[in-house]
Amino acid sequence: MTIALDTMGGDNAPSMVLDGAATASRQHPNVRFLLFGDEAALAGMLAEHPRLSKNAEIRHAPEVVAPDDKPSHALRRLTKSSMRLAIDSVHTGESQGVVSAGNTGALMAISKVILKTQEGIDRPAMISYFPTIRGESSMVDLGANIECDANNLVQFAIMGAAFARSVMGIERPTVGLLNVGSEDLKGHEEVRAANQILKKSIFDFDYHGFVEGNNIGEGLVDVFVTDGFTGNAVLKTTEGTARMVKAYLIAAFKRSWASRLGYMLAKPALDAFAAKLDPRQYDGAMFLGLNGVVVKSHGSTDAEGFANAVGVAIDMVMGEFNERIHANLELVGDQSLPEDAAPQSALS
Amino acid sequence: MTIALDTMGGDNAPSMVLDGAATASRQHPNVRFLLFGDEAALAGMLAEHPRLSKNAEIRHAPEVVAPDDKPSHALRRLTKSSMRLAIDSVHTGESQGVVSAGNTGALMAISKVILKTQEGIDRPAMISYFPTIRGESSMVDLGANIECDANNLVQFAIMGAAFARSVMGIERPTVGLLNVGSEDLKGHEEVRAANQILKKSIFDFDYHGFVEGNNIGEGLVDVFVTDGFTGNAVLKTTEGTARMVKAYLIAAFKRSWASRLGYMLAKPALDAFAAKLDPRQYDGAMFLGLNGVVVKSHGSTDAEGFANAVGVAIDMVMGEFNERIHANLELVGDQSLPEDAAPQSALS
Repeated sequence: MTIALDTMGGDNAPSMVLDGAATASRQHPNVRFLLFGDEAALAGMLAEHPRLSKNAEIRHAPEVVAPDDKPSHALRRLTKSSMRLAIDSVHTGESQGVVSAGNTGALMAISKVILKTQEGIDRPAMISYFPTIRGESSMVDLGANIECDANNLVQFAIMGAAFARSVMGIERPTVGLLNVGSEDLKGHEEVRAANQILKKSIFDFDYHGFVEGNNIGEGLVDVFVTDGFTGNAVLKTTEGTARMVKAYLIAAFKRSWASRLGYMLAKPALDAFAAKLDPRQYDGAMFLGLNGVVVKSHGSTDAEGFANAVGVAIDMVMGEFNERIHANLELVGDQSLPEDAAPQSALS
Repeated sequence: MTIALDTMGGDNAPSMVLDGAATASRQHPNVRFLLFGDEAALAGMLAEHPRLSKNAEIRHAPEVVAPDDKPSHALRRLTKSSMRLAIDSVHTGESQGVVSAGNTGALMAISKVILKTQEGIDRPAMISYFPTIRGESSMVDLGANIECDANNLVQFAIMGAAFARSVMGIERPTVGLLNVGSEDLKGHEEVRAANQILKKSIFDFDYHGFVEGNNIGEGLVDVFVTDGFTGNAVLKTTEGTARMVKAYLIAAFKRSWASRLGYMLAKPALDAFAAKLDPRQYDGAMFLGLNGVVVKSHGSTDAEGFANAVGVAIDMVMGEFNERIHANLELVGDQSLPEDAAPQSALS
């Protein structure tokens, strides 16, 4: 297996990418890496990673996509960028997946045009996974599609289930559709129509029905499905809320000498708690629905986070992620959509 | 000032409502309460609250709206319910506001029909406030309007700012519009059009521009404005996430004898921390845009939570909440909406 790395993307690129690749290479000794970026800079850095250098090859890319480059500019003008050439290598079959911590919009735009959307999928989507009370869950879409129809949501469910199987190792995932209530009549037309299709239970995952925001932290289902507007808002909300609780907690520990001492005694346990919620463990958003595996690592990630993102890309290739989606898509067939109806509020 | 209470709504009604009213009456000795419900049951309970009984009057209501009654059924059939008669008393001017812990959908449906929508407001909305790193913020709409156009969002902003002034005591509130990115081009047509109107800065609040999910826990603005679908999902998400972090924390403290001891030492400080995030402090969702003050207390609330909801209703009446909205609505006038355009994803 070969994974292409955009070494020029991310706040601490390219050294962070090489350090991350070195870690990933120790964990996955049979994987080969193609390192796209400035050849001269990379050669010197790679020399510091003797083990990685045995399994990696540098590919010169004279251009770089900047974080604030418009996706259209990156796509049309920067055809020799490290990001573009890395994606090209997936298209030609030289690699099976690509990982970049660079410009998210450019990565999606170039991937869509070069790799194209998988047969049967109308629109690619973004997925990510995160800690819950029960363990881990994932959410799709995270912002690639601001407005979605019922078919988009059904396809997100199918792709999300395939992701839960390939990357999270759940043989028969549970899938829920985010809504403002659990009754069939709640929500707007799109979620209600998608609910009707998913309820037919013809797929190789368990459809739970409608779920609500509070079910996310609980981890009620393995895959939460929603449109990109809501998914983006909700996932960012979990980050902000976790940060808020942490801030209140730190303030609490600083209140008295007793609480300071208590903190010192509990510190090893609290550190383990913090590690469980460490965002680096959940680094990366995965693009679903393209002909090829594309993983976006966080722009501010470190080597450990990048290595985790590489691990996810490897899991997706190993899990024959894209192949598994086909069977479910065929099951949808020409399921007729229920008739239009007025949106129903959380109060109805 | 007179506040009408639906004593039959909520899991522990009517005793919880009377206990809550007694607490509220101690805090607000000049407020009179009308207690709508079963006269015989209420008379016995009220006798246990001598102070409250001086400022309260029982009004018999032979019917009760059940938690699972359809709003339309409650509206058309249960015309002698405690909820309905309490709302009627606002309409006749006998009271200035109503508080109920009963069926949310029925409360909104009856309020809309009896009290009617305030002049200049197309659709009533729901608002609530919650703890943040910075203090407290509010969010509107929480689920009354699943689909919103630009004008609805602008009206939510105006009503939310009036709420922040009346209830949260912020003379010049900051208002943000929830989106998937901060640039003007991000998001769907409705948020971009609302952003253009709000950016004109003709109002008596400070419009911050687009905000994102992670800004909620940070408390970046006083009022977060979004459609009812996203608002409902996001607010419920904060609850679920806070619960998750708490569950992880409890597990951490149980890990070793040292962490258990540490917990005991830090317990007073941690209890103060928990109190700051106590949902009873933030009990109630307020209906905005009606001719009269309507506050919904949580169905599972206790007396303390109900008393807080009553306090919010009093603040809204005192703050001349509805009167303050008019001036801003007139400022919107016939602001022309920007032209239609394609939705832009979080990645563009």
